[in-house]
Amino acid sequence: MSNSTHFLDLFFYPRNVAVVGASRNQRSNNYYLAENMVRLGFPGKVYPVNPNATEILGLKAYPNIGSIEDEVDLAVISVPARMTLDIVRECVAKKVKGITIVAGGFSEIGSDGRKTQDEILGLLRANGIRAIGPNALSPVNSANSLIIGFTPTARKLPRGGLSFIFQSGLYQPRLNWLAFDLNLRISKLIDLGNKMDINEVDALEYFAQDEDTRVIALHMESIAGDARRFMQVLRETTPHKPVIVLKSGRTAAGAKAASSHTAAIMKSSDTVVDAALRQAGAIRVHGLDEFFDLAKAFEYLPPLKGNRVAIATFSGGEGVLTTDAAELNGLAVAEPGAVTRQKLVKIFPPWEIPLNPFDTGVTGQLHSGVDVAREFVMAITDDPAVDCAAIQIGGGPWVMGKTDKEQKDDTPRRNDNAATPYLNLVARGKTVVTWTVDPGNKGGQIQQLEENGIPVYPSAERAVRALGAVWRYGRIKNSS
Amino acid sequence: MSNSTHFLDLFFYPRNVAVVGASRNQRSNNYYLAENMVRLGFPGKVYPVNPNATEILGLKAYPNIGSIEDEVDLAVISVPARMTLDIVRECVAKKVKGITIVAGGFSEIGSDGRKTQDEILGLLRANGIRAIGPNALSPVNSANSLIIGFTPTARKLPRGGLSFIFQSGLYQPRLNWLAFDLNLRISKLIDLGNKMDINEVDALEYFAQDEDTRVIALHMESIAGDARRFMQVLRETTPHKPVIVLKSGRTAAGAKAASSHTAAIMKSSDTVVDAALRQAGAIRVHGLDEFFDLAKAFEYLPPLKGNRVAIATFSGGEGVLTTDAAELNGLAVAEPGAVTRQKLVKIFPPWEIPLNPFDTGVTGQLHSGVDVAREFVMAITDDPAVDCAAIQIGGGPWVMGKTDKEQKDDTPRRNDNAATPYLNLVARGKTVVTWTVDPGNKGGQIQQLEENGIPVYPSAERAVRALGAVWRYGRIKNSS
Repeated sequence: MSNSTHFLDLFFYPRNVAVVGASRNQRSNNYYLAENMVRLGFPGKVYPVNPNATEILGLKAYPNIGSIEDEVDLAVISVPARMTLDIVRECVAKKVKGITIVAGGFSEIGSDGRKTQDEILGLLRANGIRAIGPNALSPVNSANSLIIGFTPTARKLPRGGLSFIFQSGLYQPRLNWLAFDLNLRISKLIDLGNKMDINEVDALEYFAQDEDTRVIALHMESIAGDARRFMQVLRETTPHKPVIVLKSGRTAAGAKAASSHTAAIMKSSDTVVDAALRQAGAIRVHGLDEFFDLAKAFEYLPPLKGNRVAIATFSGGEGVLTTDAAELNGLAVAEPGAVTRQKLVKIFPPWEIPLNPFDTGVTGQLHSGVDVAREFVMAITDDPAVDCAAIQIGGGPWVMGKTDKEQKDDTPRRNDNAATPYLNLVARGKTVVTWTVDPGNKGGQIQQLEENGIPVYPSAERAVRALGAVWRYGRIKNSS
Repeated sequence: MSNSTHFLDLFFYPRNVAVVGASRNQRSNNYYLAENMVRLGFPGKVYPVNPNATEILGLKAYPNIGSIEDEVDLAVISVPARMTLDIVRECVAKKVKGITIVAGGFSEIGSDGRKTQDEILGLLRANGIRAIGPNALSPVNSANSLIIGFTPTARKLPRGGLSFIFQSGLYQPRLNWLAFDLNLRISKLIDLGNKMDINEVDALEYFAQDEDTRVIALHMESIAGDARRFMQVLRETTPHKPVIVLKSGRTAAGAKAASSHTAAIMKSSDTVVDAALRQAGAIRVHGLDEFFDLAKAFEYLPPLKGNRVAIATFSGGEGVLTTDAAELNGLAVAEPGAVTRQKLVKIFPPWEIPLNPFDTGVTGQLHSGVDVAREFVMAITDDPAVDCAAIQIGGGPWVMGKTDKEQKDDTPRRNDNAATPYLNLVARGKTVVTWTVDPGNKGGQIQQLEENGIPVYPSAERAVRALGAVWRYGRIKNSS
């Protein structure tokens, strides 16, 4: 695999982008197609194309694509379906190199739409122009703030090794949420829509060889390309990069919805697809929560050295539930050594023998949560019988409270970074996942943890499911 | 079933509560045992018992339980395990009627602890005193602000028909979250701990006949009582009230954790338990997310009249995923009639045929989300082919934006209640669930919806899973 030349480089690193249908009206979706790139500092040129404007966002507006003085790398066409064919003809005349067609109203609406789509495809093929869509909003690249979207992106996307392939506009209402609430560290994102030309095989091939991509998360409603080739590329990719697959349209009703949505037709039953995905080493998930949870885990976490997990919760009941979830996800409850237990006896009340899963709720009568968290994490850091940890954190004492000493001396709380106790653990090659109830009330704590690569999930089950997936992938990878 | 007399009435409606171990120190867990009741207005008397204080929370403190002038209905004993037996002796001498033993350190720590626990039990039995625990924090009753807990409860609990039975302190770090973030409307809550005396059979029997309880949510690590009797009570209860069961300790490691946590020993394999629960009509869940999701659905929603669901999402991709989830949860995708489609054609763009699942994302270029939501909900309200709805909502236009007219006239937004469009639907006997990404940024919108009985879930899958559970329960109930 090399990073030399793949035709999709053009789409992720264009020298310039013409936005056909760019709008001056801030209430229009089309306003943001150019606005995000301008505001967030896309380093290439942006050419708004709109016959009714002379200037948009302080940039010269062009009446048509032909009037742009420059060569055009990428044309994003966001006009109604009935006008799209004409614009494509102009793009052909202009010799643009790549196109995204945003509008829906093509193959997914029936034979008329399919006819137009086929005509567009014929034109593009005859002229060697590649295209994303129709019915697609993309691409996105965090490296150069190339963001094709209908809504304002809050700020520059944090860079990372996670690349998404979507079949449809699933990401669009969620980009801010993905980047700034879930704290996913995205490298690139491509939305394929009707997959008239560029399809999941192209995108998978591209991300397989893309040096900035370490984890691939693929959502699809169908395999539009050559299914055999798709499975081959998948097989070749999964030993090097985890590929998380969310294949929807599993039920008859879902498949029908997919066909009227992106004209996606799945030729095989879900059972067959499932078996093939599994054989190819893909990590199949069945819902959006799991899709994003695992994407985060694989982007954040290194491979696990072992599956022996130390569990800490605020209640014994949650410890039992977390233990069940750990076992069911392929992890094993660690048996910490005598040294660890001796260290923990100091923070646990006399009547409580510290055992894994550790019920730390009982320590609250004796010590500040900050001290408990620190002692607990230090103890398991040094324990060779512990490979990884799943820890419940709180907005209260575990990350923000005063230490015992600060309380006793009545001194102000040292404003430690919430991630500090966990970083030694990570430095020792151990993997940690956390969860918290009520993520809304944590101020900057979750942000601090996640900026330091400690994922924070909304429940024990989800934290442990993600950790287990990383463990299982590592095992499959090592045995292949 | 009557509400006449059950011995647990004493625990939920005590005339007074003695808190043995009450603390003046706000950093102590024991401070809140009395503080919540005093601050939130428990109408009975609260008697703090602490030999080192003369006054706590403005109340006279007693050196021991014997010095209280009054008869004592409920004594909550929160002192270390080694002191508990002596306090129990004092309670016996005082002829208190009921006891909660909070401390751990009994049967769950081995033979010494079990010996003390057995001695306590012997004393209580000989004197006809019933007890919750040890290793338990409860009870809670929203009707009279009887709240036995270690942390400050933010404000008066909203009343509702949902009663919880917990095996262990699972609820304790979460009570505010349950009541004020999840907006669960709790009637009563009992935490059973080691189940020395009062067990899940007693609690289930009580809630089965309690007129304030419409939904029972039961968490357990073992069946401590008579298993045959438990299943019999369950069978008798489920035709009248849904019983959601979270049985943990499913795996060997989980069962081991349970035994060292509340000395819970499950005599049967999980498979046997699962089959028995199912036969008895219980709704078994496997994790906390599902436990609370379903508890909310059953408390909020009336029985479904049918399973034909209308789905609206912001993207076609999410529509397909939601459709899969609906089918897999026993719902059927509704086929709205021609009249509905005609109404929706007005808000959809010309190239988009409005089909269920409805991809409303495309309407955003033409109309404000408020108008779309209103038109969509009105259309399905009138459609006899739609029984229920699963609707994605946003913090943006769908609940808070300006209407088309307000935008055009540049008039201020009418500050409608977010629930308004949905209440007609509900009035027509249709059931609606919603979900939103990013619940953190919604201001009071979620609160408004949930106060009006419209549940808001964090994902499509979870919304639809909950709706499906209500549907399936209704079918089982009607066929039995």
